[in-house]
Amino acid sequence: MSEPLSTDPYKGVRDFYPADWARQETLFTRIQQMLTLWGYEEYNASPLEKAELYEAKTSEEIVNEQTYTFTDRGNRRVTLRPEMTPTLVRMIAARQRELVFPLRWFSIGNRFRYERPQKGRLREFYQADIDLVGLPDGEADIEIVELAAAILKSFGATENDFVIRMNSRPLLNTACAAAGLTDESTRQYLRLLDKKTKMTPEAFMAASNTLTAKDPLALIEGRGNDVPEDVVREKHRLLDRIDTLKSRGVRNIIFDSSITRGFDYYTGMVFEVYDANPKNQRALFGGGRYDGLGTLFGRDTVPAVGFALGDVTFADFLDTHSLMPSEGTSPQIYIGTPLTSDISTAQTFANTLRMEGCRAFVNITNRTLGDQIKEAVKRGIPFFAAYGANEVSSKAIRMKVLANGEEVVLSATDLATLLQSNS
Amino acid sequence: MSEPLSTDPYKGVRDFYPADWARQETLFTRIQQMLTLWGYEEYNASPLEKAELYEAKTSEEIVNEQTYTFTDRGNRRVTLRPEMTPTLVRMIAARQRELVFPLRWFSIGNRFRYERPQKGRLREFYQADIDLVGLPDGEADIEIVELAAAILKSFGATENDFVIRMNSRPLLNTACAAAGLTDESTRQYLRLLDKKTKMTPEAFMAASNTLTAKDPLALIEGRGNDVPEDVVREKHRLLDRIDTLKSRGVRNIIFDSSITRGFDYYTGMVFEVYDANPKNQRALFGGGRYDGLGTLFGRDTVPAVGFALGDVTFADFLDTHSLMPSEGTSPQIYIGTPLTSDISTAQTFANTLRMEGCRAFVNITNRTLGDQIKEAVKRGIPFFAAYGANEVSSKAIRMKVLANGEEVVLSATDLATLLQSNS
Repeated sequence: MSEPLSTDPYKGVRDFYPADWARQETLFTRIQQMLTLWGYEEYNASPLEKAELYEAKTSEEIVNEQTYTFTDRGNRRVTLRPEMTPTLVRMIAARQRELVFPLRWFSIGNRFRYERPQKGRLREFYQADIDLVGLPDGEADIEIVELAAAILKSFGATENDFVIRMNSRPLLNTACAAAGLTDESTRQYLRLLDKKTKMTPEAFMAASNTLTAKDPLALIEGRGNDVPEDVVREKHRLLDRIDTLKSRGVRNIIFDSSITRGFDYYTGMVFEVYDANPKNQRALFGGGRYDGLGTLFGRDTVPAVGFALGDVTFADFLDTHSLMPSEGTSPQIYIGTPLTSDISTAQTFANTLRMEGCRAFVNITNRTLGDQIKEAVKRGIPFFAAYGANEVSSKAIRMKVLANGEEVVLSATDLATLLQSNS
Repeated sequence: MSEPLSTDPYKGVRDFYPADWARQETLFTRIQQMLTLWGYEEYNASPLEKAELYEAKTSEEIVNEQTYTFTDRGNRRVTLRPEMTPTLVRMIAARQRELVFPLRWFSIGNRFRYERPQKGRLREFYQADIDLVGLPDGEADIEIVELAAAILKSFGATENDFVIRMNSRPLLNTACAAAGLTDESTRQYLRLLDKKTKMTPEAFMAASNTLTAKDPLALIEGRGNDVPEDVVREKHRLLDRIDTLKSRGVRNIIFDSSITRGFDYYTGMVFEVYDANPKNQRALFGGGRYDGLGTLFGRDTVPAVGFALGDVTFADFLDTHSLMPSEGTSPQIYIGTPLTSDISTAQTFANTLRMEGCRAFVNITNRTLGDQIKEAVKRGIPFFAAYGANEVSSKAIRMKVLANGEEVVLSATDLATLLQSNS
């Protein structure tokens, strides 16, 4: 006899037992419904992608340290997608001529990063990616931010629960250029800025000083004497955008010069949604405009704007604010069987309830009725009804409400109606 | 400038554009609804599993030739799940004491096999796995077969469209033993039998003759003089099961001694659902009883029975029989904007429709109204309505039915009602 296998999942990934998966489903089904109401359509792809897709333009840290990349038996290098945007851009480039732009597209699924597992950081996480593709900076950016806010509000969040922090890559780029940074050191500076909240102010300044003597953020904030004209112009453009969003009903939005987002590919506005709870001020999700990715495939540039929302931080936010919905798809009624010879009749009866959309769990064990009731309670099924020869002849069903032990005698039709109204 | 990247997906996997994904969603959402009505609950897990999970008990062919197995940066051997059953058994073994048995569980998701891509055989496919765990041979097996038939019927298939072919591993095992095969050569014989329909009768007989001089199938069919008692007993047991299923309303079921299923782990009845179309007689999906897997984890044996249904063959079946449902989640109405300054008003109006559950796509480009109508037609959106200053003041909306060009003037409330009734 060989050593028993471990029952643990692979390191850093989760097993979803029915209650866990019901939470994921509830979360993403609501987002999915919200997005289809706004005219967005769902696409998907395999998590297996050619490795070169990520080597081209994703942030260096992710490619070098954080991807699952391996060589298949045919000697092809394969990566498990760490994010969805490169796949989206690839799919659009493949059908650029047939597709009707703008595209309002979203995708919900798992992404993989080879990270040291810790709270809120897993090797596999779920994400909803939402993108509006084919329009330049303007109404598309406004819709994307409105939509980000609308998703949170659809879960019952109010404007006091979260705040949208917005910045602009052109603003950051012009400020970096004005501070004397080259293109490459600008990229390094932006990556450093992305980590600012995780560093001490001293550590940030020390790292910043190795890249530039002048402080680009000071230029943006208007500290110092001669702020260059293009920095002023980009800042006004961003503040105008923020005013427009406020006038459109997104009032909990502010300018934050330190928002930059991790990926190199952003080219326009960038934003992050933060929990407004002073005890938990962290980014929930974010996005921005990226106009340059199509060229990787030798196609025309396709302007795009979007955001992505991960399951772990989002569920934490909903839990913290008591906003996690509790819709269930678990059984509504346990149909007990007085004798094992009643099972066939009970299944037939359950089928009539199922036809009416009621979720019925039928006993097919030889447990006593008393044990069946105990089992129904353990399972958290709210109602119990035995069904056997008596019920067939009397056409009356005695239904037990397991929360309080009350019993009601009713017809099959009335039972179905009652379950429908409780679903 | 470096060479442009290819826009092709990785070999053997599919990109799902919105219309493609809508089909997958329709297929699996219907199966999901059906299963929850029967009291089944959905679980899930990561496609990343420890490689040893499959080395233990899956069929040799799959482990040696068909898995995606790689070594991660921490020197752990990882496999992309080729099937769900080992994961299911692992998850159950991990919580064997807390779980309330029987479990009625299902999981829908992608599975990976390193195969030569060809029609109906991809490197990534989607599958619904349905299992009833914790009960011995009996009512559980009956429910599982009833459920397999019920799923097909929920798509509108009749008993003339498909046939369930059933066999039994104990029957095959006793016949093989009676024919003089050892345990190991029995396993080889069953794997050979699994490929029988893909071979010529001569090739099958030649391969069979290398394993056994006596023909186990002839013993089962009752050809030859002295059929051993245990073979007769197992055959009667199986025929009784088939009779019970017929009496429960599954009339399109037959005994087929050549059904065996690919995996080694089956221990009881096995079945396959075949397309009844004489031009397309092939297996759609199948399953069976497997009682021994829990012991791999050093836990008690947990008896189980289940089946798995793959997307490609199932969708082909539905297409062939014109049963593919066409429910959509694409936009119902295109809200046009006479001027770009109307966009804000149009979005606000669209939000009132969205609150009523209507899927509204708003124009945010500077296209003319004529071009917007053309675009709505291209997108296949059925209704068009412009919304701007006129509509705000008149409170009347002129809605165009794009299929025939007819126009109706109506209030916002009536428009929402009309869209709801058309969804």
